Amino acid sequence: MAAMDAVLAKIDENRDAALGRLFELLRIPSISTDPAYAGACEQAATYLADELSGLGFKASVRPTAGRPMVLAHAKSTRRDVPHVLFYGHYDVQPVDPRALWASDPFAPELAEVEGVKAIVARGASDDKGQLMTFVEACRGFVETGGLPCDVTILFEGEEETGSPSLPAFLSDNKAELKADLALVCDTGMWDRDTPAVTTMLRGLVLEEVVVTAANRDLHSGMYGGAATNPINLLARIIADLHGTDGRVQVEGFYDGVEELPREVADQWKTLPFDEAEFLGGVGLSVAAGEQDRSVLEKIWSRPTCDVNGIQGGYQGSGSKTVLPAKASAKVSFRLVGKQNPAKVADAFRDFVRERLPADCKVEFISHGASPALSLPFSSEALNRAKRALHQEWDKEPVMAGSGGSIPIVGSFKQDLKMDTLMIGFALDDDRIHSPNEKYDLTSFQKGARSWARILNALTL
Amino acid sequence: MAAMDAVLAKIDENRDAALGRLFELLRIPSISTDPAYAGACEQAATYLADELSGLGFKASVRPTAGRPMVLAHAKSTRRDVPHVLFYGHYDVQPVDPRALWASDPFAPELAEVEGVKAIVARGASDDKGQLMTFVEACRGFVETGGLPCDVTILFEGEEETGSPSLPAFLSDNKAELKADLALVCDTGMWDRDTPAVTTMLRGLVLEEVVVTAANRDLHSGMYGGAATNPINLLARIIADLHGTDGRVQVEGFYDGVEELPREVADQWKTLPFDEAEFLGGVGLSVAAGEQDRSVLEKIWSRPTCDVNGIQGGYQGSGSKTVLPAKASAKVSFRLVGKQNPAKVADAFRDFVRERLPADCKVEFISHGASPALSLPFSSEALNRAKRALHQEWDKEPVMAGSGGSIPIVGSFKQDLKMDTLMIGFALDDDRIHSPNEKYDLTSFQKGARSWARILNALTL
Repeated sequence: MAAMDAVLAKIDENRDAALGRLFELLRIPSISTDPAYAGACEQAATYLADELSGLGFKASVRPTAGRPMVLAHAKSTRRDVPHVLFYGHYDVQPVDPRALWASDPFAPELAEVEGVKAIVARGASDDKGQLMTFVEACRGFVETGGLPCDVTILFEGEEETGSPSLPAFLSDNKAELKADLALVCDTGMWDRDTPAVTTMLRGLVLEEVVVTAANRDLHSGMYGGAATNPINLLARIIADLHGTDGRVQVEGFYDGVEELPREVADQWKTLPFDEAEFLGGVGLSVAAGEQDRSVLEKIWSRPTCDVNGIQGGYQGSGSKTVLPAKASAKVSFRLVGKQNPAKVADAFRDFVRERLPADCKVEFISHGASPALSLPFSSEALNRAKRALHQEWDKEPVMAGSGGSIPIVGSFKQDLKMDTLMIGFALDDDRIHSPNEKYDLTSFQKGARSWARILNALTL
Repeated sequence: MAAMDAVLAKIDENRDAALGRLFELLRIPSISTDPAYAGACEQAATYLADELSGLGFKASVRPTAGRPMVLAHAKSTRRDVPHVLFYGHYDVQPVDPRALWASDPFAPELAEVEGVKAIVARGASDDKGQLMTFVEACRGFVETGGLPCDVTILFEGEEETGSPSLPAFLSDNKAELKADLALVCDTGMWDRDTPAVTTMLRGLVLEEVVVTAANRDLHSGMYGGAATNPINLLARIIADLHGTDGRVQVEGFYDGVEELPREVADQWKTLPFDEAEFLGGVGLSVAAGEQDRSVLEKIWSRPTCDVNGIQGGYQGSGSKTVLPAKASAKVSFRLVGKQNPAKVADAFRDFVRERLPADCKVEFISHGASPALSLPFSSEALNRAKRALHQEWDKEPVMAGSGGSIPIVGSFKQDLKMDTLMIGFALDDDRIHSPNEKYDLTSFQKGARSWARILNALTL
């Protein structure tokens, strides 16, 4: 314990410098979905590899067909210790609508957000702030004698675009990546005072659908009423996706969806979750979706379908009496339990095709697909991590579900036969993917201390 | 008749110069819906006023709250002749999608389009080429002795945006605008060889609807399934607009819609109109809309509802797992018979509001509203114009309906108690409002000759 105290003291001593390092990373606009920012992604990868090299890791930037990976290895000074693989991602979401940001998304600053000191920038919470908590924990050990276990670190640059290069990278580098346990930081706390371990993750199917009717844009006066309007058609298809009971109407969609185990259902019922407050926090009061489910079930353990983007016809100001040739939508499905991503994507495509008039065309673009995942509650690593978090936060951690997807957790399970411990310090009000994203200073500082405790606990 | 022959010969002699004048006008990017082109609209107005001054008109550019009007007057050398008011518009539609144009939309050129010589440019057909046919007819008279009747010319710059400044301008300038008959050139021929007089015009209601759910963009993993998605909501509302029979479901929408008079219905049945060819020309084969109506009825005499633009959420390449705060659509209704535009707009707004969850908001923006119109078949002016067109084209003109709206025809009727003769030389394949808009050289040249004959016939 004396050694652990020294590590925690070192992390505290490093606080200001750690914040400076994070700010440097946040200044790099590493938006992965937009090819214009490919150079910034390279720059972020290089920055991280240099940081890890400085800590004694054998670190390299590895090219892929898309954005590069950062891969780094460091040995413990001790023998016969576990080997952990830590995963994070340095890429971030686009910033639009830019006008809604109170400050430059890539000029990080410390600000009071509703009375709490926070780091404000795109990526502050998702995922640069989170991954740097682990790097700073490693630094605490390195600067006080050495790591307690062998550590491999993998930073990806395509998490926000469905990780297209990841499967090939994992399969090409299995030996280098295989460890005893994976650690993933892309999750959140239950609330500002209560840590959480995420044990269930929803999967994700991302489909873009482009519907074409006429072979060119038409005058709506000349053809309106006689020619199929692809916007109206697409709207009809999207409307059909949900029944009046809020259930998804795609055939076979609920195959593989299981009810919660009793123990989890019971724990969730005892959680102080206020549905009105959850929705009220974003200006809503009427729960959408499946009529017969609680909001916590809906976001943690039920599958969904949402349209994330739609466009067609005239987009400028004023009006244009056009009957457009095309309309398109980006549709996503969140999966749970044993839902099969490929089957869901296929069933969705059939669903769309069945609703097309014979003279219309449709094109589908897949932006990724990953299954849902869960960690057994009996896991020894899980219980050690829970104790470590309890020590740091002085509160019992919540066993949580997560609505968001972390595709790599599935790949670790399927390709590398590794379980993943998902622990992060993000908060629900971090505005990730939205303007004015932030990460509480407490999350960053106690997050680093938490990882130090967890690494230590896994080694005992 | 000798005088008429001289006028026609003069028009033929002027052909090349006339084309040069039209090209000069087409080079001005007078897009009215986009404020960035307000200066170009001013420039087009000034160009036309200068042209008319050069022909001896007393011409001026008149400011409005939006784009300016051009108003010009010229007297006949004869007395006790009719006074006609000619109307056209110098504003044009936006050019997007720009990438689909084979040449610069504002660099007019003569090209072979499917074997026919045509003028290619934005506005070539709608409406710069058309209005210049009348100017060139006037020139033919002026250069051979004088106009056969008194002529007032009104060129508007906001036709493509629903003519917001027109009502006030008409009401402020009634005395100056009142004439015996209005002439409007914004219509088409039956086919390349057969002229037409348009006697029925559909009205138009343009509504933009903006639906807001949460007070900010949300992460679809964190809120998906529990928070209302405004894209899904808007899609449902749009889908509800039409029943499975193709009829519009807005309450009271069909109030005031009348069946065709027997004589018109009979004429339309004899027209060689090939539905398969009409739809096939734009790559379609399945007629949309009301199941129990012919295509010609649908586009000429039945009311419709189309979405002309929709947007919401992420619009870039790739995917973004966002649940957006807002989604919006530009919705237009084509009206016929005695449908009341204000009532249709109100009923549409109620229709949307009824479908909103209690915690969602909606904003409506009106982009214009005008009623449908028709000209009595017994009109003397109509019969004189028919004979003049018959002489020029050697074919009986078709009495046509038109799906497009020409708001000013309604204003002329309501505010100035004038009937309007709608004659134009556009063709269905002119690609108006679309990339690669064109106007056949024949339309331009024989159009000018046709107007000369019509002016003469009205005076006899």
